[in-house]
Formats: sequence, C-alpha cells, structure tokens
Amino acid sequence: MSADAAADRRFMQAAIALSERGRGLSTPNPNVGCLIVRDGVIAGRGWTQKGGRPHAEAQALEEARDRAEGATAYVTLEPCFHLSPRGPRCADLMARAGVRRAVIALRDPDPRTDGQGADYLRARGVDVEMGLMAEQAAAAMRGFVLRQTLGRPAVTLKLGLSLDGCIALADGSSRWITGEAARAHAHLERARHDAILVGGGTLRADAPRLDVRLPGLEDRSPRRLLLTRHAAPDGWERIARPDDIATLSHVDHLMVEGGAETAAAFLRADLVDRLLLYRAPILIGAGRAGIAGIGLTDLAAAHGRWRLADDRRLGEDRLEVYERVRSA
Amino acid sequence: MSADAAADRRFMQAAIALSERGRGLSTPNPNVGCLIVRDGVIAGRGWTQKGGRPHAEAQALEEARDRAEGATAYVTLEPCFHLSPRGPRCADLMARAGVRRAVIALRDPDPRTDGQGADYLRARGVDVEMGLMAEQAAAAMRGFVLRQTLGRPAVTLKLGLSLDGCIALADGSSRWITGEAARAHAHLERARHDAILVGGGTLRADAPRLDVRLPGLEDRSPRRLLLTRHAAPDGWERIARPDDIATLSHVDHLMVEGGAETAAAFLRADLVDRLLLYRAPILIGAGRAGIAGIGLTDLAAAHGRWRLADDRRLGEDRLEVYERVRSA
Repeated sequence: MSADAAADRRFMQAAIALSERGRGLSTPNPNVGCLIVRDGVIAGRGWTQKGGRPHAEAQALEEARDRAEGATAYVTLEPCFHLSPRGPRCADLMARAGVRRAVIALRDPDPRTDGQGADYLRARGVDVEMGLMAEQAAAAMRGFVLRQTLGRPAVTLKLGLSLDGCIALADGSSRWITGEAARAHAHLERARHDAILVGGGTLRADAPRLDVRLPGLEDRSPRRLLLTRHAAPDGWERIARPDDIATLSHVDHLMVEGGAETAAAFLRADLVDRLLLYRAPILIGAGRAGIAGIGLTDLAAAHGRWRLADDRRLGEDRLEVYERVRSA
Repeated sequence: MSADAAADRRFMQAAIALSERGRGLSTPNPNVGCLIVRDGVIAGRGWTQKGGRPHAEAQALEEARDRAEGATAYVTLEPCFHLSPRGPRCADLMARAGVRRAVIALRDPDPRTDGQGADYLRARGVDVEMGLMAEQAAAAMRGFVLRQTLGRPAVTLKLGLSLDGCIALADGSSRWITGEAARAHAHLERARHDAILVGGGTLRADAPRLDVRLPGLEDRSPRRLLLTRHAAPDGWERIARPDDIATLSHVDHLMVEGGAETAAAFLRADLVDRLLLYRAPILIGAGRAGIAGIGLTDLAAAHGRWRLADDRRLGEDRLEVYERVRSA
C-alpha cells in the first residue's frame, strides 16, 4: 500500500469512528461521519447530529471554514444530492466550499441520491473516489443500510452470560452475572440504539428500566418497546410480532435485551444482525438458558451464520460481538 | 529489567515450554523441562521422558556434553537430590558436569528433596537462584504440584460449546459443534493427560473412543476412566465417586470430557482446576446444557473462582482456558 493509500485508510477509519457517535441519534437520517483534511492536517470533523441535522458534511465544513478550500473530504456515505426542506444538499456544500477531492466509502443506496451526489461533485471538478472501506462504513451505518435493503432496522441481541451460557440461576436471579465495566458498556450500547425491546415476561419479572445510567448520557435513553400480545403499560410501545419492527418509524438501530423467548422469536425470524455477548468468568450449572428454541433440527444448518467482529476485556468479563453473515 | 534478567526469563520460558512436552507422559515423575545455556547459546535441552526417566536435567546434560562446563542450567523444578534405584541424582549430575549457575523455577515440594538439591549445588560452588517464574512452571507441572499439595491429580474439564452454551441439540446430536482445528486441538490435549474420564451416560449414549487420532500421536492415547456406580466394560477403569481420583496411581493429569452430570459432579466436589472451552460461532437454542446443577444458590459465590489463562482462535472456533483461582 502506498503512503497515500495508507493515509486515506487512516482518515476514513477516523470518519467511520465519528459516524458511530451518531448511531442511535441521527434517525431519520443515516449516521454519517466526515473528515476534512488539508495538507495532511484535519481541518474539520462532523457526524450527523440528533434528529438528522446538520449532516456530517455540513458540520465538518463549518468547522473547517476556509481551510476546506483545496482539501480532501473523507465521508462514510455519498453526499446527499436530493432537495430537502430540512437543510442544504451536501454535494453542493462541498463543491461550493472548494473541496478538491472527495473520498467516499459507501454509495448512497437511497434512490434519491444513488450516485448523483458523486456525479455532481465530478461535474464541479472534484476528484471523487468511491468504495474505500465501504464494508466497515456500512457496518457502522447498519441500520440505515438495512432500512434501504431489507426495509427494517438493524437488530442487536444482547446477552449477559456465564461461561456455561446461563443468563440467570434456575430461580431467575441474575444480579449480578457481569461486572460494572460490562454493565456500563451495555448502557453505552443502549445509547447507540434508537430503541430497546424486551418481552412481556421480562417486563413482568424484572421491571427493567432500560435507561442509560451513565453520567452525561442520561438523556440518550432510547425508546422502550415491548413484544407482547397484551397492551403495553405507559412509557412502552407495543409490537405484537418481531416482523412488526419494519413498521417502526425513526428506529434504525434496535437492541433486543431478552428474555429467552423474545431472543428466540427474533432469531427464528432471522431478524438478528449482531450479537453482543457479555460473558462473565463464572459457572452457574443448570441455570436459565439465554435463548429458547429456535427450531434448529440439524447442526450443520447452524454453521456459517455468525462471524466474530470484535472482542475485548471489560474488567473481569469479556465482550464478544458477532455479526450475522448474509450473502449479498 | 536488565538484559540479563530478560534473557533469564526467555530461557526459563523455553524450559517451561519443554516441560509441557512431558505432560501426560512423565508420571510417576514430574514433567520437568531443562535448558543448558553457555555464552548465550543453547547447548542442551531436556524434558522428563515417558515413565519418568531420564529426567530433564540428565537429558539436557547428555546433549550438552562438555559444553555444560561453565554453563547456566535453567530448570523448571529443583534438581532431585534423593537416591533412587531408577537413576542418578540430578543435583549431583549438574555439579559433576561443571554447571556454574543454576536458575530454578520451583522449589521441589517433595520432602525428599525440598531445598536439599539447591543446597547441594551451592555447596559444590554452583550459583543458585530459585523462584524465577515459579507460578508458570507450577502451572505446567500442575498435576505433580497438586499431588504434593492436595494429594490428587490435576483435573481439566473440557467442553465443546455453542455460543449459547449448549453441548448438543435437545435430541442429543452434537456432531459437529466445533470444527476440525478445535477437535484436533482437543485430541492433542488428550495426549497431554494421563487419563480421560467420562460418565456412564456418555459412554452409553456416545460410545466415545477417547483416543488420540492425530498422526504420530496415536500411541499417546491415555487411560480411559468411567465414573459409574456399575461395572466398567473392558478397556475402562471405574471410579465410583470424583474423590476417588486421589487413589489413581500414575495419573497426574486427568481430563474430564462429560457429560453434564459428570462435569457437575466434579465441579460440586471442587475438583476442577482448569476449563477448556472450545466454542463454536453458532447458536443452538434450547439445547443440552454442558453442566448440570452444581448447587449454586447465590450468584456472588460464583465469582472469583476462574481466571482466563489463555485464548486462541482454532479455525472458526475459539478456545478459552480458565484456571481455578485457589488462595495459597
């Protein structure tokens, strides 16, 4: 890899990291990240803000001001080119600011842009490269991408497990399996989702608050959904079946927190895109399993579906992140 | 750390790695490793051979020949000083060979040596340092150490698990959860144990061969033990209770392979020192749990017992090794 190509990857990686800041906040817009770089120095950074505006590019250009002239813009999604009453078109903003080169990770699957943003930039004399680290950018904007491709939000299933796969003792007690660092991380993940869902049994048994109890992030507590055949109590929105998540508005990233029947219902419907496994170094033995029956009758069919995407230590515990492997 | 101290650690690490070669082979003697180093160059390597002779030191000195003169010996256990009809005393061998310095990891807990080997070397003018990486050396000779301290072999519990902690579908099928690399590694671990144990239910259901099916290691298949109240079939030795492992002769390292009731019986008796978790990236859901009830009634009591000692990728799977934390 040339030094320039390596620098491009580093800056795009940083733009993707910025895009993660808007995950769970930016709906109805995708959580884009953008970096403006002139002469190897970062002049502006942006990520799509709460409610979708300003867009990442607008924010980064605002920070860069006249240093955007002749600069390179790294952006995780093709700049928008469709007119909106909510704000300016980013492709236009970038051209006007004098950006000389645009490195774009993912072509916008939204048919209202879908290549037109890049075409417009080229027509205005901007060097455009599209496709760098598209897969990583798509993973960070998973909810937006799945909305476009599968018509539903991205679903994360979170489990807090013992080494032998239990989420509680047989009597239901589960405080605590994981330690403070893991629980804090799980709260941070809540803040990165637009909504959290539990099943009716979990609500009745545990009365979970499902809020974000991290200093400074209290107002990032997401919407609370209940999978139930009955009515939902105050403060909860009800869905009757996992498939109904497609009908939720302003939810691109959904976290399912259990219990075992709810986890199984989403897995059976193949609606889980990402597993967050918080694993404590304890054995429980004959405890409660995290996942009820998912209709598996043949072990061979279980393979090839999950790929380890990340793992880390969190205090005494470990977090593993698995992603659903879907053929394109 | 000085350069010399760093070199000492590197050479001792290599001696510990050599000692692992004798694990599961060297009983009734400890699986010691030894390195002879002169002027920074390795002159001899040894590990205790099958059945316990030659000792690691004898083998390393044999390889080094006259290059042992003035050399440093790295040895994972204090050289023996008690007379045996089976071979020479290693402390004597080392002094006679002209070794100038002996770096010893673990003082020999066997009361017949217990410091006398080191004293003898010092009396013969050898520089002796004892205690370097003693904990790591003890872990590699875990079976010998536990024989001396707890009067029983070291026990490894092996489990092949899905991400949700199942060892089989509800109908019992378990072929295959883990892939080839993980299964080959598990066979290698068999070769490093003196005996393997399963419960009567597993024998009846799966008829496991429990042999080492790795090219070149077929003759390393360990003894086969059965935990059962009934008689054991031909080729199997019976034990009636987990505690009976203390009575087994020539078994320092024992691997328990299941099933769930047998695993739980050893855990309830606090007889498991090491967990080998082979984990496949699959979900099963409502499958068979790997561990039956272990009498846990309070989650707090489950914590602080297991420490991650190693983890690695094995093809698509992951191996995690946990060690039982025991206060000294």
